[in-house]
Amino acid sequence: MNGNQFGRLFRVTTYGESHGPAMGATVSGVPAGLELSEEDVQRELDRRKPGQSMITTSRGEPDAVVINSGVQDGYTTGTPIGMVVQNKDARSGKYEPFVTAPRPSHGDFTYSAKFGTRNWGGGGRSSARETVNWVAAGAIAKKINERFGIEVKAHVNQIDDIVAPDVTFEEMVEHTEENPVRCAHPETAETMRERIDEYQQEGDSIGGSIYFETRGVPRGLGAPRFDSFPARLGQTMMAIPATTAFEFGLGREAREVAGIDRNEDWEFDDSAERSSADDASGDKPRGDPTPVGNDHGGIQGGITTGEPIYGEVTWHAPTSIPKEQTTVDWETGEEKRIQVVGRHDPVLPPRAVPVVEAMLHCTILDFMLLAGRVNPDRLDDRPGEYDTDYHPSSPQNDPDGADTHAEPTED
Amino acid sequence: MNGNQFGRLFRVTTYGESHGPAMGATVSGVPAGLELSEEDVQRELDRRKPGQSMITTSRGEPDAVVINSGVQDGYTTGTPIGMVVQNKDARSGKYEPFVTAPRPSHGDFTYSAKFGTRNWGGGGRSSARETVNWVAAGAIAKKINERFGIEVKAHVNQIDDIVAPDVTFEEMVEHTEENPVRCAHPETAETMRERIDEYQQEGDSIGGSIYFETRGVPRGLGAPRFDSFPARLGQTMMAIPATTAFEFGLGREAREVAGIDRNEDWEFDDSAERSSADDASGDKPRGDPTPVGNDHGGIQGGITTGEPIYGEVTWHAPTSIPKEQTTVDWETGEEKRIQVVGRHDPVLPPRAVPVVEAMLHCTILDFMLLAGRVNPDRLDDRPGEYDTDYHPSSPQNDPDGADTHAEPTED
Amino acid sequence: MNGNQFGRLFRVTTYGESHGPAMGATVSGVPAGLELSEEDVQRELDRRKPGQSMITTSRGEPDAVVINSGVQDGYTTGTPIGMVVQNKDARSGKYEPFVTAPRPSHGDFTYSAKFGTRNWGGGGRSSARETVNWVAAGAIAKKINERFGIEVKAHVNQIDDIVAPDVTFEEMVEHTEENPVRCAHPETAETMRERIDEYQQEGDSIGGSIYFETRGVPRGLGAPRFDSFPARLGQTMMAIPATTAFEFGLGREAREVAGIDRNEDWEFDDSAERSSADDASGDKPRGDPTPVGNDHGGIQGGITTGEPIYGEVTWHAPTSIPKEQTTVDWETGEEKRIQVVGRHDPVLPPRAVPVVEAMLHCTILDFMLLAGRVNPDRLDDRPGEYDTDYHPSSPQNDPDGADTHAEPTED
Amino acid sequence: MNGNQFGRLFRVTTYGESHGPAMGATVSGVPAGLELSEEDVQRELDRRKPGQSMITTSRGEPDAVVINSGVQDGYTTGTPIGMVVQNKDARSGKYEPFVTAPRPSHGDFTYSAKFGTRNWGGGGRSSARETVNWVAAGAIAKKINERFGIEVKAHVNQIDDIVAPDVTFEEMVEHTEENPVRCAHPETAETMRERIDEYQQEGDSIGGSIYFETRGVPRGLGAPRFDSFPARLGQTMMAIPATTAFEFGLGREAREVAGIDRNEDWEFDDSAERSSADDASGDKPRGDPTPVGNDHGGIQGGITTGEPIYGEVTWHAPTSIPKEQTTVDWETGEEKRIQVVGRHDPVLPPRAVPVVEAMLHCTILDFMLLAGRVNPDRLDDRPGEYDTDYHPSSPQNDPDGADTHAEPTED
Repeated sequence: MNGNQFGRLFRVTTYGESHGPAMGATVSGVPAGLELSEEDVQRELDRRKPGQSMITTSRGEPDAVVINSGVQDGYTTGTPIGMVVQNKDARSGKYEPFVTAPRPSHGDFTYSAKFGTRNWGGGGRSSARETVNWVAAGAIAKKINERFGIEVKAHVNQIDDIVAPDVTFEEMVEHTEENPVRCAHPETAETMRERIDEYQQEGDSIGGSIYFETRGVPRGLGAPRFDSFPARLGQTMMAIPATTAFEFGLGREAREVAGIDRNEDWEFDDSAERSSADDASGDKPRGDPTPVGNDHGGIQGGITTGEPIYGEVTWHAPTSIPKEQTTVDWETGEEKRIQVVGRHDPVLPPRAVPVVEAMLHCTILDFMLLAGRVNPDRLDDRPGEYDTDYHPSSPQNDPDGADTHAEPTED
Repeated sequence: MNGNQFGRLFRVTTYGESHGPAMGATVSGVPAGLELSEEDVQRELDRRKPGQSMITTSRGEPDAVVINSGVQDGYTTGTPIGMVVQNKDARSGKYEPFVTAPRPSHGDFTYSAKFGTRNWGGGGRSSARETVNWVAAGAIAKKINERFGIEVKAHVNQIDDIVAPDVTFEEMVEHTEENPVRCAHPETAETMRERIDEYQQEGDSIGGSIYFETRGVPRGLGAPRFDSFPARLGQTMMAIPATTAFEFGLGREAREVAGIDRNEDWEFDDSAERSSADDASGDKPRGDPTPVGNDHGGIQGGITTGEPIYGEVTWHAPTSIPKEQTTVDWETGEEKRIQVVGRHDPVLPPRAVPVVEAMLHCTILDFMLLAGRVNPDRLDDRPGEYDTDYHPSSPQNDPDGADTHAEPTED
Repeated sequence: MNGNQFGRLFRVTTYGESHGPAMGATVSGVPAGLELSEEDVQRELDRRKPGQSMITTSRGEPDAVVINSGVQDGYTTGTPIGMVVQNKDARSGKYEPFVTAPRPSHGDFTYSAKFGTRNWGGGGRSSARETVNWVAAGAIAKKINERFGIEVKAHVNQIDDIVAPDVTFEEMVEHTEENPVRCAHPETAETMRERIDEYQQEGDSIGGSIYFETRGVPRGLGAPRFDSFPARLGQTMMAIPATTAFEFGLGREAREVAGIDRNEDWEFDDSAERSSADDASGDKPRGDPTPVGNDHGGIQGGITTGEPIYGEVTWHAPTSIPKEQTTVDWETGEEKRIQVVGRHDPVLPPRAVPVVEAMLHCTILDFMLLAGRVNPDRLDDRPGEYDTDYHPSSPQNDPDGADTHAEPTED
Repeated sequence: MNGNQFGRLFRVTTYGESHGPAMGATVSGVPAGLELSEEDVQRELDRRKPGQSMITTSRGEPDAVVINSGVQDGYTTGTPIGMVVQNKDARSGKYEPFVTAPRPSHGDFTYSAKFGTRNWGGGGRSSARETVNWVAAGAIAKKINERFGIEVKAHVNQIDDIVAPDVTFEEMVEHTEENPVRCAHPETAETMRERIDEYQQEGDSIGGSIYFETRGVPRGLGAPRFDSFPARLGQTMMAIPATTAFEFGLGREAREVAGIDRNEDWEFDDSAERSSADDASGDKPRGDPTPVGNDHGGIQGGITTGEPIYGEVTWHAPTSIPKEQTTVDWETGEEKRIQVVGRHDPVLPPRAVPVVEAMLHCTILDFMLLAGRVNPDRLDDRPGEYDTDYHPSSPQNDPDGADTHAEPTED
């Protein structure tokens, strides 16, 4: 069965199991001319990799990425980028007791029931180890998005019932990576860390959530209906292992807010930098309409408004816990008591922060391509590249020159 | 741009604007041999159509469906089913003030900014009128799902801060359609109705949410990762106009639940009806493992467990309200005060109940087809149909006979 | 089952059977701002419709198209365009003898064997009547392509063993529509018509082929490998009912040509109009490399070279013939002699000329969108449309102005 | 841009350039339970690999495949299969003269013009080296198809103007691999080899074609219209590098055949093995209708009839030839004479035989899955696999037992 790819023009296809030989991602839809190195990808993988702190699994994976194609002399060539990350520290032996006795609330039984078999070493294909592929793809999307002034940031805003106070985008950028919990509010991060320790010492685990926000996503992304921005983002976020809720804008709270309170009046945006463009075109008396607030979360009618997009994603507690639980062995027909000892995260959001950011970057870039805002063929970055008269010289990327053969011949 | 279709094997493609000539849906992936009439579809459309009560828009649309293809002599033929619903009561004139002055928090401006123009009569393509197409498609999916024992039900479980107490699936089936709010708890429904009236009389609107639940969805639906059951359901639900949150299982609450509390032990399911199958196969000493609870919401590792799937979807308050608001006219460059008077719903979930059910049916059937549980070619219902030796006589549908040429030739 | 759509960004979804109530096409991916009327579509449908001459079926179908969505005030809005053509002259009664006795070499038996049933009135879904939908979609693609200087023309170059001499593109444009055979060489057309008459009078039918050619398709369309230009065009042409061969460039003859004879040297294109662009950019000493010939058929490495694309498509003889043939009745178990009398074409290519042109237009436009050469959101044609600072003012369409917010922020 | 994947349920995604680090294929849609080893894949790769004889390139590639995922203990697990083949003998240095001076009739210039850059080592992404990925995927499809009695064979039936006489399927199986030309008619093969030698010694190359045929493809594969069997097969074959024509059945010759000659009467198939099934079902007086001939090439109405599918694919002469040719250098603005010396095939079909077979296997399996004839989740081969009461025990694969929870509840 399929299920190993997402994206329409920026398309990511993946493979790999947590204790198999390697993880792999194939990324198509990357325009030529982007400067890209394995280090660019590695930087993001290092943020996701295990063993970063006491509150993450101690599995010793270097997560070293190798790029097999699509890059030449340090620049992308427009062809698919194949990446591989070897699994180095797979120790599947300790999972043998669970081959025919499913761990509580894992995918063990659903996989075995569906497929008749499964990669029983660790979570196999259902393991969050798969997200190494997503972060690798996101690293490429991020490099492109940044060229267009798009920024994305996420931080852990709740663990158990500890809720972080609201923080600004700048605080998220500054503080998130400073602590192992990846909460941008340092004091709350410390409280969260202590709470996580408590669960861990009890052999238990706990849930949490991530808040995300964007800057610079242009107006007009998202297609009416099934390819609306929230529909695609919702799919992507709910594909992350162990997520149980996706919200954007006021999210779940919107149910208790009156129309007059949530609705936002329009005013003209007469800021200097925008009006200069108006002067040039000369066809509008004022700047663009702009909403007075952002309870709409950057999306109206399924299409981005140009305001920041923000929302939350929730994770349930990790299911791998040392506490004693009961299962049944379908081969012997006997009940048994088990303990899932191993190298597991006691809480998921801290390591999921780069995953959420990666999925946002991939989703945004896909929409940028669909809206014709990124030249799908080339970025015109590479020195000495060929410029053909036939080819539009990337007007999307180069606002000044647009000598294109593809100009309309009418009117 | 695309965005007008969803589903992989059961695929729905739509068109239509709220004040255009007609709405249309093309449904492909319907096996041949299903008994299907326009009345089957009409029954569901009537549940969604406007003008059903005081708390819904008074727009007078009969929403009469015409089937243009794919059905012969009362049975489907396996070819695409084209359906059209004419718009009869479009009065777009009253929207003229808003052509160049966007209504607050509608898609007016994002559409105009993206496309340079828009169907300014009502919400155009962003109108919830589009869901008439979805309900039509869902009616077909429902007929097939029911053959396999699959049931789906939704009801309004919260309006403003009025929360309905938990109800059983049977109560949902029995009571939801009895009141205009479509809340399965009659007393709460009455309280909700009064609250809605209050908002309506103030020229305001309010948000709310829907709880949904399934019965009979078999184990094993959903593919690992991007086609996981929650990923696809999340996409579908977030495509419904005005939704801001999607949750399944414990949803947003999962963040505060410990692993040991959410995890569910396994026990054997030794119920009579299942063990009979075991006796036949003789290869398992006991019935299937079954979880002791359903905090997992019917899904583990992205794949259905066979337990009920349940969750919630949240709607923000309708943005069309008679209360005075401020906007700007981009043509004149002037601010102006406006009132969106017209025929609008003061709250969305009551009419969205059949939409949520339709989208669940479509999503489930799509997964049923992908898992090989529904014969994609034929249902073998039609009397006198041709049975070929070459063709597998629909083993998926007929558990007794499976004379198929397509049998493996090895072992 | 699917199978009723093609295209990736310009996507056409269809339904309808030859004797069902109506045919329908939904076209998504049409940018906003295109001037479009039902007459634009009707003009092309009239070229395909039956009853145009003695050598086409006499079925009396006006093939009048109705546009149900996606157009407002004469311009497209960027939302899906739904079109319906009612079937007016369906007389399925005469097909009753064939319900359980398949006509030789039709799809009767494969449909019944696959689906257990079929629309037995005429060819049902397998009828070439379906191509009315394709021509409707192609009419829209053509309007857009023409704005970019792209032209497409096809004519009948062989019927039976009568081969038309080579004609120029201009001759094809001028002469093809002058005769009922649609052969651009008038004398050959007359010979072909006589030959067709002979077959028709004998109650028989005959095969033939179409030659197609393009002008103005820009360099750079087509993605490496499975989305190469010939791969997608091959799929499209082989989807046309009754086609048995697709060739481009030297086609089947290429097997007998040596590398040195087929290979084409490169020279500089120093034509005046191109070098002006060179002067502007100043980064190339000469014009673009250009091949000295076009045995490559406008495609190298799966990507267009800017030279004309040309090729041939072959149709087998129509299977509906009045001559007596033998079949079997699977219900009675008896052989029987039948005659397929009715209103049938004695040869297919003449009516397929507009179909081939339509499919070329759809395929080319899809590639234009994928290459970022057509703004997917808007064409900027509509008077008074909204121009937002956020939105790139369609640099693809307007080579002069490109004030875009989406400019890269680096370098 | 995309273009690196094909298939709908059996989906292959690829990457790699001829002189890049490695080639890679990700195959999704492989049911669990298939016995699969690297040797199974290697066997097919060895048939395609370079250096097999004097008439193939002498590039020294072992083409050793590594399977990175989707297989455990020798059986597939239902998750994506990631494969990598390292490029060992890349010597891109000799291509340096061509970086800014495109070789005649290669993809050099179209790639550079489209992307601004390209992998200039060898053909980069446009190289036929990519087909190593396709053959790897086809090896998996073949293993599954063989279980269902499906066989595929291809051989070289024409080189230059040397045409092989018709051969039987059995002769193709027996003789094709015996000679380096891969022509199943030994004497013709020898003549072809001599002719190829002549071209090679002149520093030239020549075209040719492949004939393919199937056995055991069941009736009912292919969906009406765009997913018809010939449409999908046409796409696949035209995606193979350097192909210029695709034909099936009578192919191009069909244009000269009368309807009465091509049409095939129906008779009952009363062969013993089929009638036994009839006896069991008891609902038909005779065996299935079967056509008296196979001019239709195994496909009617776009759907397979159960008869052998056959056709031809044509390749133009390889464009890499040592003979002196002229090109231009876009950097210097000068013409220059070049010779493409290196390790190149003087003719393509001999090495393309396993590629055609692979693409046929992939296409057929994809259709088998779409028609519900192969259980998409599992093949029930693996010893000791889990059999759940909920899950249909693969009725597609096991005609005897079908204890399924997914049975219809009506009738």
